Amino acid sequence: MSVTASAPAKAILTGEHFVVYNEPAVVMAIDCYVHVTASERADDAVHITSDLGVSGFYKKDRYNPERGGVEAEEILMPINIAARTVLDELNEETGLDLRVSSSIPVAAGLGSSGALAVATVAAVGKLLGANFSKDDLIELSFDAERFVHSNPSGIDQTISSNGGVILYKKGEEPIPLDVEVEIPVVIGNTGMPRRTGDLVKSVRGKLNDFPEVLRPIIHAGGKLSELAAEALVHGDLKRLGELMDINHGLLSAIGVSNKMLDELVYAARDAGALGAKLTGAGGGGCIIALSTLEGRDRIANAIQRAGGTTIIAKKTDAGVRVWANPA
Amino acid sequence: MSVTASAPAKAILTGEHFVVYNEPAVVMAIDCYVHVTASERADDAVHITSDLGVSGFYKKDRYNPERGGVEAEEILMPINIAARTVLDELNEETGLDLRVSSSIPVAAGLGSSGALAVATVAAVGKLLGANFSKDDLIELSFDAERFVHSNPSGIDQTISSNGGVILYKKGEEPIPLDVEVEIPVVIGNTGMPRRTGDLVKSVRGKLNDFPEVLRPIIHAGGKLSELAAEALVHGDLKRLGELMDINHGLLSAIGVSNKMLDELVYAARDAGALGAKLTGAGGGGCIIALSTLEGRDRIANAIQRAGGTTIIAKKTDAGVRVWANPA
Repeated sequence: MSVTASAPAKAILTGEHFVVYNEPAVVMAIDCYVHVTASERADDAVHITSDLGVSGFYKKDRYNPERGGVEAEEILMPINIAARTVLDELNEETGLDLRVSSSIPVAAGLGSSGALAVATVAAVGKLLGANFSKDDLIELSFDAERFVHSNPSGIDQTISSNGGVILYKKGEEPIPLDVEVEIPVVIGNTGMPRRTGDLVKSVRGKLNDFPEVLRPIIHAGGKLSELAAEALVHGDLKRLGELMDINHGLLSAIGVSNKMLDELVYAARDAGALGAKLTGAGGGGCIIALSTLEGRDRIANAIQRAGGTTIIAKKTDAGVRVWANPA
Repeated sequence: MSVTASAPAKAILTGEHFVVYNEPAVVMAIDCYVHVTASERADDAVHITSDLGVSGFYKKDRYNPERGGVEAEEILMPINIAARTVLDELNEETGLDLRVSSSIPVAAGLGSSGALAVATVAAVGKLLGANFSKDDLIELSFDAERFVHSNPSGIDQTISSNGGVILYKKGEEPIPLDVEVEIPVVIGNTGMPRRTGDLVKSVRGKLNDFPEVLRPIIHAGGKLSELAAEALVHGDLKRLGELMDINHGLLSAIGVSNKMLDELVYAARDAGALGAKLTGAGGGGCIIALSTLEGRDRIANAIQRAGGTTIIAKKTDAGVRVWANPA
């Protein structure tokens, strides 16, 4: 028997960086997924194959490379950690075969590692007969996320598990937003890895150097996310787009945009986006452009002409899904 | 006998737009000048020749085109108004020959009309034996400025008359800043006319739509100018540059930057500018890049490669100057 779990990517609609300073952010699950297929093995190895072209197995937590050399362990380790957490939780000793395929770009601010951790926990859990709640999945995927991000907020696993749109504030229970309209977006990827740690640090440096200036900017960013949440609940995408444009300017002000991100943002706006901004930590990674359903192709083409790769996506209300595959 | 007056351009270092909402701005005179040479005529005409390739004369305030057709009146009228204001002030009836040459680009946010009005008043005043103070020049050039800008603040004439750097707040006496260091800059001109009225209106629209967000942004802009003034007084150009970068982001947030302005800003920063931002109303017009004296050529080349024209400039402490030409 094998079990497959799929978990969606996340995109930050508004509020990244300001969220570090206890302001709210609006985060959405998008219909771009990682899939993990799990089956049992006769031995006690955890064997992992990723469509990134790497594979290997863990025996007593020691990594044995197959494809991709020892460097591949950085990619495969969080999957092993997620699987191991479930085995420990369930007091199981079985070996596992895990096959990962993903359409979420890595290190692009789209929560690929959170989605992967959640999907792994969900697939292994169901395979071994556990009946994990969504909260269990979030909790059990934390160890894997800690390997990737030194101090994960939990937001990526939350949105991957639950789907939909949430208003998130550090240390508080995320508030699901009741959004009835479609939220069509185009993600434009610069191909440059985003540099979360460096950029969070550089924003803190600016706050230390210019507190009188940065504090009201951060405050503006928080208010903006509150208004964005309201606009979403009212289905007012035009207003959401205007807020996203303002948000991008605030992110430029705190120094986390760059030339390539701005070029993709302008390309999207010129092609009719309702709003466009960088999404995630910045310094690289992705932009997100808000669109109509029909407008997405045109925006995607414009972003591609400006040098980015694109994902045409929309909000998904389904979070993680798990199913047993036909024998 | 002929008299020549020169008056410098202005560049806004920080705070444009926010100044509309009673926040301070930092404005600097730069060594880029308009020259007006005045001499008396036997008849009662005011004859004006501009190096923009237009000429014509006013007889009893009726325009008679020579070069440039009737459209040229828009360019020549404020010069006539400035001259006429002085004639009226002094109860004189003489005709005048006025020759204008300028290295200040027009409609680019560099205060060309204010400098032209001040230089005209200064030249005509001295020609006719008046001994105008700098305050007189500012006052007497208001009518000409009103023709160009519907509701001029007076800041352009003030900086053209006095030179130096000032902290300016609407409705308050400008505060001259005691800046001992050189302030080398490169002005990069997009060649697109800036659209002051439209953009001031669009910012007000955003403030109406999103007051909770725009108010703290405007407040941040004001604090930024206060810190910029301090940095200037301490000769800390590195800090000033960082504030200019933040300021550009805030201007992007309120929607007054555009793709070309951003491209010139990035070109300047990549070429080593200490900071770069749009200057003036935005939507076109110019950027200003802060530099070292030696760094200016490199920055100017980079801006030119990005499609802008450039002016290599620095702060000038001399405001308007007037001299009688040798016979």
